[in-house]
Amino acid sequence: MFKRLRVRSPLVKRSPAPVCEEPPENVYHRPHFLHQSPGETSQNSDQMTRPVLFPPRNKNLPWCTGYAEVINAGKSLSNEDQATCRPVILKKRTSIDEDWVFLCQNEDKQTQEIMATYWGLFDGHGGPTAAIQASKHLHHCIKDQLEDIFDIIGNPTAASPPMRLGEQNGNGSQTSYSKEKKICVESVVKGALEIAFKKCDEQIGVYLASHNQTGGCTALVVLHFQGKFFVASAGDSRAIVVQKNDVLPLSNEFTAITERQRIQHLAFLKPELLGEEFSRYEFPRRVKRNDVGKKILYRDYFMSGWGYKTAEEDDLKYPVVHGDGRQTRVMGTIAVTRGLGDHKLMVHDTDLCIKPFLSCIPEVTVFDLEQEEFGLNDVLIMATDGLWDVMSNKDVADAVKNFLEDQKHEARRYTMLAQYLVVKARGFPFNNNWTLEDGSFASYDDISVFVIPLHNQGGTA
Amino acid sequence: MFKRLRVRSPLVKRSPAPVCEEPPENVYHRPHFLHQSPGETSQNSDQMTRPVLFPPRNKNLPWCTGYAEVINAGKSLSNEDQATCRPVILKKRTSIDEDWVFLCQNEDKQTQEIMATYWGLFDGHGGPTAAIQASKHLHHCIKDQLEDIFDIIGNPTAASPPMRLGEQNGNGSQTSYSKEKKICVESVVKGALEIAFKKCDEQIGVYLASHNQTGGCTALVVLHFQGKFFVASAGDSRAIVVQKNDVLPLSNEFTAITERQRIQHLAFLKPELLGEEFSRYEFPRRVKRNDVGKKILYRDYFMSGWGYKTAEEDDLKYPVVHGDGRQTRVMGTIAVTRGLGDHKLMVHDTDLCIKPFLSCIPEVTVFDLEQEEFGLNDVLIMATDGLWDVMSNKDVADAVKNFLEDQKHEARRYTMLAQYLVVKARGFPFNNNWTLEDGSFASYDDISVFVIPLHNQGGTA
Repeated sequence: MFKRLRVRSPLVKRSPAPVCEEPPENVYHRPHFLHQSPGETSQNSDQMTRPVLFPPRNKNLPWCTGYAEVINAGKSLSNEDQATCRPVILKKRTSIDEDWVFLCQNEDKQTQEIMATYWGLFDGHGGPTAAIQASKHLHHCIKDQLEDIFDIIGNPTAASPPMRLGEQNGNGSQTSYSKEKKICVESVVKGALEIAFKKCDEQIGVYLASHNQTGGCTALVVLHFQGKFFVASAGDSRAIVVQKNDVLPLSNEFTAITERQRIQHLAFLKPELLGEEFSRYEFPRRVKRNDVGKKILYRDYFMSGWGYKTAEEDDLKYPVVHGDGRQTRVMGTIAVTRGLGDHKLMVHDTDLCIKPFLSCIPEVTVFDLEQEEFGLNDVLIMATDGLWDVMSNKDVADAVKNFLEDQKHEARRYTMLAQYLVVKARGFPFNNNWTLEDGSFASYDDISVFVIPLHNQGGTA
Repeated sequence: MFKRLRVRSPLVKRSPAPVCEEPPENVYHRPHFLHQSPGETSQNSDQMTRPVLFPPRNKNLPWCTGYAEVINAGKSLSNEDQATCRPVILKKRTSIDEDWVFLCQNEDKQTQEIMATYWGLFDGHGGPTAAIQASKHLHHCIKDQLEDIFDIIGNPTAASPPMRLGEQNGNGSQTSYSKEKKICVESVVKGALEIAFKKCDEQIGVYLASHNQTGGCTALVVLHFQGKFFVASAGDSRAIVVQKNDVLPLSNEFTAITERQRIQHLAFLKPELLGEEFSRYEFPRRVKRNDVGKKILYRDYFMSGWGYKTAEEDDLKYPVVHGDGRQTRVMGTIAVTRGLGDHKLMVHDTDLCIKPFLSCIPEVTVFDLEQEEFGLNDVLIMATDGLWDVMSNKDVADAVKNFLEDQKHEARRYTMLAQYLVVKARGFPFNNNWTLEDGSFASYDDISVFVIPLHNQGGTA
């Protein structure tokens, strides 16, 4: 039974900011769980030798998560990947922003805290600032959103989330709300993650502007609580579950290739965003002056296939989405179409802003751990595109199975696996190239990998 | 070897319109393959008894396709479903619209015709006109688009479609085009179908305006040629393959539920389309005056999950997407969000046009028959939503397997199966209700079903 009191509280009690050993806001650093001094960070950033970094032996990550990273081969001054791995405690608030408050008569029986675990990977571009900011703040934004709905997620026996926050109905059983759509608890968690990414993006925008910084980052987040993984991805990092002989992808990539139609559609609806520089059509190659008047291959926003159109003068402009394979870019500038930051990203030498074509909203998938049984070799792999550019899901799954089977009795097997994957993708210097075992080009990008063991969900290995 | 001549032809030689026994443009009718006189059509439209109609015994459809239909139980004056099933002959043109022409030196060795088979289902609303027009013309639009690219699809040994129609390069082998993206032939067929739907929609718009008619229809098309099914769907009809113990869906449905985010996004980008009548947010129920100031559940265009926002005066407006389950509608008016027609569909008693929120573009999927082996009981089922509203894919697959196994030696087994499915979904009158075998409500809608046997792909049964 609930006793309902109307209390307007001008002051919101939120949990205090967590105490941590992290460097101040604006200092470049590596993930705090690597426990590196600034000197070590600088020393380990050698882009000629590309040493593989991992947490110190006596500093286990939550869930005995394995982690390893390597810097790029020179494409930027620093390692623009960032990573976070930490417990998050979701706390019941004693009041809700200037709104209704419930005092439960037998409050002590109610859940007051929910223990969650958070993993985040952030792949920066145009400078490390956005990725550093995201790695420091996105989990606070998520915590904030989830604590707003603590009464819903903290009460698993309750029916569906109520139409009005703080009230009890909403399960459609009350006659006055008989036409109310039923929402499930999972949906409000998904919504919380989506809104948290949006809020974090706004904060990063303010930070970048006030610190005269630029740049952006992808964000791949895994949040575990109440027996489920919520995987939120905005960008081209990837999470997969490797379980026995199966690979289960938990995220999709968002790039100028996969989001071509969304971008062209916006260009159709808001042609002013293209200025006089760009055409919204896609062509297999740049249109040449002697193509004009000929029927040439093209795609418009509504087409998944290709058609022929008569080339016009206007088609000589640079296409808003152009390039082949991984070189495909929006407005010739950026390949990844979702992420945080990039508020002031402009097309070189123009006043055309690219941000309207980018999205900060993640796609959220849910993986229910309680529906499955896991063995010691079943893991969730999260990695930035540096890994996936040179290894397929199957390559990674094969490597996982072989490695973990070989290292059955090794206490640090998940961190060793992360190192193994990073080394496999970075390759070795050969004839002045970073080269894979099969002789092809290795990854020249930053590579960061989490290996999350699934068998005992947060216990020790 | 090709001899290239530049010929400008003011007159385009297109294949002549096919001779058929169909009624004139503006007369209501049932599918021509039912061979009904106007008197029979009227007699068979009894909405009290709902007789099941099927083609006469001596008039086999192509591929020995089975077909059956039933009229609705009174929701509209006539059966608003329409169907087409016919061979389509794609012919090489002797010239291309004011463009380059190729004369092949050994032309007789080249393919001059491609035999295709076409099935179409059109579920009308707001009157039968759009569905009748679509059933008469969409296959001509498709034929037209495919004949534009005949040189590509008629030449399976050629590499990828050329950047310039009529030229030979385009496979990336020429050095001057070394950065050209490779396109596959399947992609230009997909594009042809997408453009054909768009052209047909434009034609229907012109027809409706000039005949002072309104209404629209969904369109589900299956086109077979060169060993592949191309399935194009705009609406909520559905095609599935039932093969041994598997069901393979070949289409998705496009409704206010599945396209909610697309519709809300357009409302965000073009708020003027909502006038003063609608809000772009979705809520689990209508917002009431006493909700204002409270935190209420909502979804915006970027959200797959739900969040809470403080309700404002503006949220009292009718949501652009609203309703529960199958009652969910765009602007309170229409549940299906893709199809042909509806050019003048307005929100009742306003000057707000709904067409901008609708799409005439199909999603195209490809099913390669040459990758599979088929038995006598393997079929493709196409049906309007009248069937799927009361039967799941599994229900249909079970019915297919049981029925065809029982009727192994029956020559008309595929038409009998179509009848069986239609009767199963229409149910029987019981206590003044159309009732299913299990006592629940049967389908009150028009129901149309094609059963396409897959084992001998166009031969006789």
